[in-house]
Amino acid sequence: MWILRLNMSDRTYRLEEVPAAYKNLGGRGMTSTLIRDEVNPLCHPLGPNNKLVFAPGIVTGTAAPTSARISVGGKSPLTGGIKEANAGSAWPQHLAWMQIKALVVEGQPKEKGKCWMASLKWDAKAGKPKVEFFPADQYKGKDLYEVYPKLFRRFGDKVAIAGCGVAGEYGYANSGIVFNDLAKRPSRYAGRGGLGAVMASKGLKFIVTDGQGAPSVNIVDKALFEQGMKKLAEAMRTHSVTQPKGGLNTYGTAVLINIMNEAGGLPTRNFSSGRFEGAAKIAGEAIFEGNKKRLGKELYNHACSPGCIIQCSNTWYKRDKTEHTSCVEYESDWALGANCGIDRLDDIAEMVRLCNAYGLDTIETGTTLAVAMEAGVIPFGDGKKAIGLIRQMGKGTALGRILGGGTEFTGKAYGLTRIPTVKGQSMPAYEPRAVKGIGITYATTTMGADHTAGYTIGPEILSVGGKVDPLTPEGKAALSRAFQATTAFIDSTGHCLFIAFPILDIPSGFEGMMEECNGVLGTSWKSEDAAKIGAEILKKERAFNEAAGMTKADDRVPEFMRYEPLPPHNQVFDVADSALDSVFGEL
Amino acid sequence: MWILRLNMSDRTYRLEEVPAAYKNLGGRGMTSTLIRDEVNPLCHPLGPNNKLVFAPGIVTGTAAPTSARISVGGKSPLTGGIKEANAGSAWPQHLAWMQIKALVVEGQPKEKGKCWMASLKWDAKAGKPKVEFFPADQYKGKDLYEVYPKLFRRFGDKVAIAGCGVAGEYGYANSGIVFNDLAKRPSRYAGRGGLGAVMASKGLKFIVTDGQGAPSVNIVDKALFEQGMKKLAEAMRTHSVTQPKGGLNTYGTAVLINIMNEAGGLPTRNFSSGRFEGAAKIAGEAIFEGNKKRLGKELYNHACSPGCIIQCSNTWYKRDKTEHTSCVEYESDWALGANCGIDRLDDIAEMVRLCNAYGLDTIETGTTLAVAMEAGVIPFGDGKKAIGLIRQMGKGTALGRILGGGTEFTGKAYGLTRIPTVKGQSMPAYEPRAVKGIGITYATTTMGADHTAGYTIGPEILSVGGKVDPLTPEGKAALSRAFQATTAFIDSTGHCLFIAFPILDIPSGFEGMMEECNGVLGTSWKSEDAAKIGAEILKKERAFNEAAGMTKADDRVPEFMRYEPLPPHNQVFDVADSALDSVFGEL
Repeated sequence: MWILRLNMSDRTYRLEEVPAAYKNLGGRGMTSTLIRDEVNPLCHPLGPNNKLVFAPGIVTGTAAPTSARISVGGKSPLTGGIKEANAGSAWPQHLAWMQIKALVVEGQPKEKGKCWMASLKWDAKAGKPKVEFFPADQYKGKDLYEVYPKLFRRFGDKVAIAGCGVAGEYGYANSGIVFNDLAKRPSRYAGRGGLGAVMASKGLKFIVTDGQGAPSVNIVDKALFEQGMKKLAEAMRTHSVTQPKGGLNTYGTAVLINIMNEAGGLPTRNFSSGRFEGAAKIAGEAIFEGNKKRLGKELYNHACSPGCIIQCSNTWYKRDKTEHTSCVEYESDWALGANCGIDRLDDIAEMVRLCNAYGLDTIETGTTLAVAMEAGVIPFGDGKKAIGLIRQMGKGTALGRILGGGTEFTGKAYGLTRIPTVKGQSMPAYEPRAVKGIGITYATTTMGADHTAGYTIGPEILSVGGKVDPLTPEGKAALSRAFQATTAFIDSTGHCLFIAFPILDIPSGFEGMMEECNGVLGTSWKSEDAAKIGAEILKKERAFNEAAGMTKADDRVPEFMRYEPLPPHNQVFDVADSALDSVFGEL
Repeated sequence: MWILRLNMSDRTYRLEEVPAAYKNLGGRGMTSTLIRDEVNPLCHPLGPNNKLVFAPGIVTGTAAPTSARISVGGKSPLTGGIKEANAGSAWPQHLAWMQIKALVVEGQPKEKGKCWMASLKWDAKAGKPKVEFFPADQYKGKDLYEVYPKLFRRFGDKVAIAGCGVAGEYGYANSGIVFNDLAKRPSRYAGRGGLGAVMASKGLKFIVTDGQGAPSVNIVDKALFEQGMKKLAEAMRTHSVTQPKGGLNTYGTAVLINIMNEAGGLPTRNFSSGRFEGAAKIAGEAIFEGNKKRLGKELYNHACSPGCIIQCSNTWYKRDKTEHTSCVEYESDWALGANCGIDRLDDIAEMVRLCNAYGLDTIETGTTLAVAMEAGVIPFGDGKKAIGLIRQMGKGTALGRILGGGTEFTGKAYGLTRIPTVKGQSMPAYEPRAVKGIGITYATTTMGADHTAGYTIGPEILSVGGKVDPLTPEGKAALSRAFQATTAFIDSTGHCLFIAFPILDIPSGFEGMMEECNGVLGTSWKSEDAAKIGAEILKKERAFNEAAGMTKADDRVPEFMRYEPLPPHNQVFDVADSALDSVFGEL
């Protein structure tokens, strides 16, 4: 089991045995521990002393269902704190097959403006991974949709690719790291927090992985692992949210548009309402029906990564039946749609495509456009002009650089007070004034406003893992804390967070997840250990953030949400500071 | 004695008796206490809950020499912490004559985009100050050099004017509040920290003061006051730095250019060297000689405000003998000159003029241009293009808005790592790697990087108030602490900080300052109380900053100064974190 270090100062690499203390870590647990242990919290995120860490989950690379996730960690240029962003792709499987628990990118080239790519494959003769570096200057400034096919032609059909786009090259705090999906599109993003710029700052444009011939993941107790796998797969196949031809497989994550709109918690026109009159036009149902009309047949969704049971990734087609883009996720659909007052799916799809092409996070992009609209740069609801603004970002014009800096940056550039961010990261698609628990997660997570860090939407809106009133602040700090801790564990296993839907409702599914991990690692974790292990990860992240200068003052929603009531419920964010402080205070 | 509150939500005002606890406060002591007591440290600086406080010093309005200073306080849009910026002008004298100890601007108009001006004068019949509000929309977007003469024509020759320019209207974090000088120019800036944007965010464009007929400052012990005044004036008239036709009166503050260049501590081309090959061309001596050549006679400097003995404010003339601009201060000269690699005084003067016209801080502007030059937006040394960039700021273009956000904002927009800021505010004209004590002041002051907060340049470079090696970090934390505490007191008296030169070397001068204050207030402060009173002010400011989310992590110089040696001394900033933490730790 290796830690692989790429030193970008001189383009060398080093393989290290995984230290005993890191043996049971994976995914977010690995990235956050490594960053906490090795990165000076006061370093400049784009300087030589930041590190970028890629870690597959504990069961990634095995046959465990929906487990091909990669965690990417570093000090975030967007939040100034620790960051873990994750994505589903075949890419981490290659790492796992080569028994690489973490790939750490270090240093910085002296050569200004030059970049390289790393090809990582299994050296059968030496019995270990091998890295080669190649110049990548020819790919700079290019659309990733043009570049990825070239890379596949060059390195072969079986490889997987991680990369950053022009957004990273420009140093945008809104820049993600992209992994290819099963159709080789540059579309699966570890999007949030600006890690694309960290990658680019290291002079590293792509990492091409090829794990063919590698020994694959070592599984200590195969019988236990397989028992766990079966329990988890069974839970996923029977739960209404995750089952085949269920909500996610049919309508994609955008199935949430109508649900959140109905709940009055769909942030609209830069978080000025919880209801969007155009919601039905951009909902998952509209995507399904729109494709059906254009293609003349029903189209169910596909998997973003190998071995996924849920298969929630959609494709949007043009009138001429050619593909427009994949994937129009709920978050993208909302951010670029409802939150900008835009109700045309063709416009939203084009914006998603451009974000993929340039290496932008769709959430941060949509919330940034909405802030620009509030500032009067373009009108709310103007899809064509919104597309034009994203193109500015791709070109790196002055306006593009303002927008590329993200939502808070853009709000500051125009002197606005209504900027929906926490720790510099924009809020995603759930209004904290209408859904108090998720607001607590936004405020307190180590990541900056992030729904995936503690998805209380389950019990608050979806009646998954319990059922609670979204509008009350009562009991929500404890709820958010429990979700945040469990999530940090799930993010470490390598499973997609969507397994949370079945495993929170079906205890044998939760056991299955734990048995998979125990099978791989030889541990004897119980279900109740998940939150404890997760809490330890959160504490490490919190320690990093504190050393980076964060305090309770950073665990707050923006001031305007405290005094501006949100229609239709006309509520402000009325969670007491003491409740916010209790999330980590009582962890 | 009044606190006057202007409520900009509905354009009303209220006079309050000064509470007993505030009776002995003035200047910075008053603004910082009021902000600490009344402003939520987590409020948005440009939102309805920030306040803007103007306070004349304790002896301002009396005949005390060089004492017409105004402190302006608020939560800073640039640093996110507390801010006191001060300037010399007749303006605060009017306040003091009307016995207004603090003018507090509160609230925010509901009417978007509209603005007003307030006319404040003495109502002899009522025996108290009176305020009238007038629409000021006609002055929006205008050059302040055009507007100020109109205002003087409208309100009369005897008034004084405080205002904000287009920089404030755009919400720039680089925007100051400007007061007129004795020739009625809009040239005396409370420049740092973005308070112009705070003023504009309140819908307040100008405050016109007219203290004619008012009762003037109440002096409890006139004899003591006059004794103090004499001692202080005597010290100022005999000290080499402040005496008539001394260094400051002849060459202005720019007399420091050659001195700092010689010391290897003149930051050059975005803090990449401590020596500028063009220093002699922009030095105070060159200004004096240049004017002499153009005017055919020697021109000594003038006072920026009534009653000043030092008279260090210069004017730069064009070849055709007409005035170009006033004043080319050392900081402006350096920031827009050496730090941008520009060695033409005519270009620098034009940039100063534009900063005055738009309401920009010259320091933040120069350091921002240098960062833009490092990013390749324009070349180092190109004065014409630098002028063009400032014009962009005046127009509010996308590029202008990037630059208007300040040095750190601009550095982030271009993904740079070499950004010379602390707490978001750019460093002024002394290189911390060449002058360690001033670096400690930059790092630790509550204000963000600020030389005036603890001017250790005195003993480190000028042999005033002692003599110590600038390159050693030894003993410098204590030195900075002592200077910061004493400065907070001087900033409260209403005296210009330049009285520090004589009073640190001449004990009777220091006594004189204390006796002036005791005379006015009826207190019995001793010389040794100055630092104690100052320390209490610093603690209040620090408490505000901590509640706003600042920690030790904010008391650090930028990372690059830790690993990049600065020519010619080839030193890094080698002050231990523990020494930095001891500044406030042992206060």
